[in-house]
Amino acid sequence: MSEDLDGADTGAARVTAAVLVIGDEILSGRTKDRNIGYIAEYLTEMGIELAEARVVADDVEAIAEAVNALCARCTYVFTTGGIGPTHDDITADGVARAFGVAVHHDPRAVEILKSFLGDRLNEARLRMARMPVGAELIENAASKAPGWRVENVHVMAGIPSVMQAMLDAVAPTLRTGVKMLSRALAAHDVKEGDLGGPLGEIQARHAGVMIGSYPQFDGGRFLTTVVVRSRSEAALEAASAEVARLIVELGGAAPRSAEEQA
Amino acid sequence: MSEDLDGADTGAARVTAAVLVIGDEILSGRTKDRNIGYIAEYLTEMGIELAEARVVADDVEAIAEAVNALCARCTYVFTTGGIGPTHDDITADGVARAFGVAVHHDPRAVEILKSFLGDRLNEARLRMARMPVGAELIENAASKAPGWRVENVHVMAGIPSVMQAMLDAVAPTLRTGVKMLSRALAAHDVKEGDLGGPLGEIQARHAGVMIGSYPQFDGGRFLTTVVVRSRSEAALEAASAEVARLIVELGGAAPRSAEEQA
Repeated sequence: MSEDLDGADTGAARVTAAVLVIGDEILSGRTKDRNIGYIAEYLTEMGIELAEARVVADDVEAIAEAVNALCARCTYVFTTGGIGPTHDDITADGVARAFGVAVHHDPRAVEILKSFLGDRLNEARLRMARMPVGAELIENAASKAPGWRVENVHVMAGIPSVMQAMLDAVAPTLRTGVKMLSRALAAHDVKEGDLGGPLGEIQARHAGVMIGSYPQFDGGRFLTTVVVRSRSEAALEAASAEVARLIVELGGAAPRSAEEQA
Repeated sequence: MSEDLDGADTGAARVTAAVLVIGDEILSGRTKDRNIGYIAEYLTEMGIELAEARVVADDVEAIAEAVNALCARCTYVFTTGGIGPTHDDITADGVARAFGVAVHHDPRAVEILKSFLGDRLNEARLRMARMPVGAELIENAASKAPGWRVENVHVMAGIPSVMQAMLDAVAPTLRTGVKMLSRALAAHDVKEGDLGGPLGEIQARHAGVMIGSYPQFDGGRFLTTVVVRSRSEAALEAASAEVARLIVELGGAAPRSAEEQA
């Protein structure tokens, strides 16, 4: 991985990722996903741009199709869910099908499970060592049973605390791009519809930044948050200054100018 | 829509849906999506099966590609986000490109905006009447500016309260399938790895049900929730009874047997 880490220093490349959430329980609404938002924030902070997220069912074909689509277009894919000890945990089969390889019980994973579980290692728990032939293990500091990686696809648990431990283990191995910088400018009592015209003109003058506008209404006050993003600090500052002046012109309070990144 | 509503009575068909969340702010992690889970629960309750969800960036090509993929494979597509008054609201352009039609200011939508906004209807706010030619309006009881539908694609706001009002307006027009019934059986102090083997055998004996297993660990106690789902009440009861017996055999408390649907 040293080439990849060196690559980070050059900082030239855009590094992208996709998240693939696997699980019927998310699609039925029974469980609310918390992994997409966590991974999005984590990767953005690292200088990796989340380009897409998908949620698919516990279905080998659906998993394989999504893995194929996403791993072709993004630097990295991160999956969550479907690597436990029960019959509905079929992420290994889906990823193996995507790559056209067989699934086996990885001997290193079996050893980890043996040393942790001892006599409790039954056939169901052995499923947690099932992965495509050739996969590399991802350490699981939370509950031992490892995640794994095939090519650019990182397969992690669905339980948020376990997924987070695995992401911590993966992070140092990832190539990172130039970090996206951002400024959020809060325009209190300014409505998005009043801001929209001149904000579009600012966007048109600043091709190197992306300007987004996010309205909220709490029942009493309007709040429009304008988020300016760029990989260039100078471009970010120039556009943000114009947005800040616009907000004051429209009667909003002088916005905070640099309170956050990402 | 009367044919569709009649179709609901036959109850024979599986009706599927996809959610497409549009927005850079979700992919950066700045905003956490709350719409996928809400729509998932809402549709499941109606007898519509959410088959997939995707999150894409504020990018016309990305939106068009996702719309094309999802509307071909699902009965309905629901999009959220990107229909406001600012330059980054480009959902209309993405959906129009997917269907190969032009975007215009819909006269009915312009009238709604005029009567609500009066003198405040400037060029930016007029953007909220932009939609593909031929679109049908979706009422917005929360904040007036309408959503819209093209073919089987329903385009809704990103702000959760507004999206929810639009979904309420759309719901009566949707064809529904046979509702998926479910039982959640809570296996306290039973570990998923002990349940896994015999649970897989129950699944193998009951082809007409889907059995999922969802572990939790609160630091003190293990809880495995087994969710049995089927469109047949009889099949659901038969499999659930076996799962309940298994949980007791494994030393768990007698599980609740019928506390929820969906």
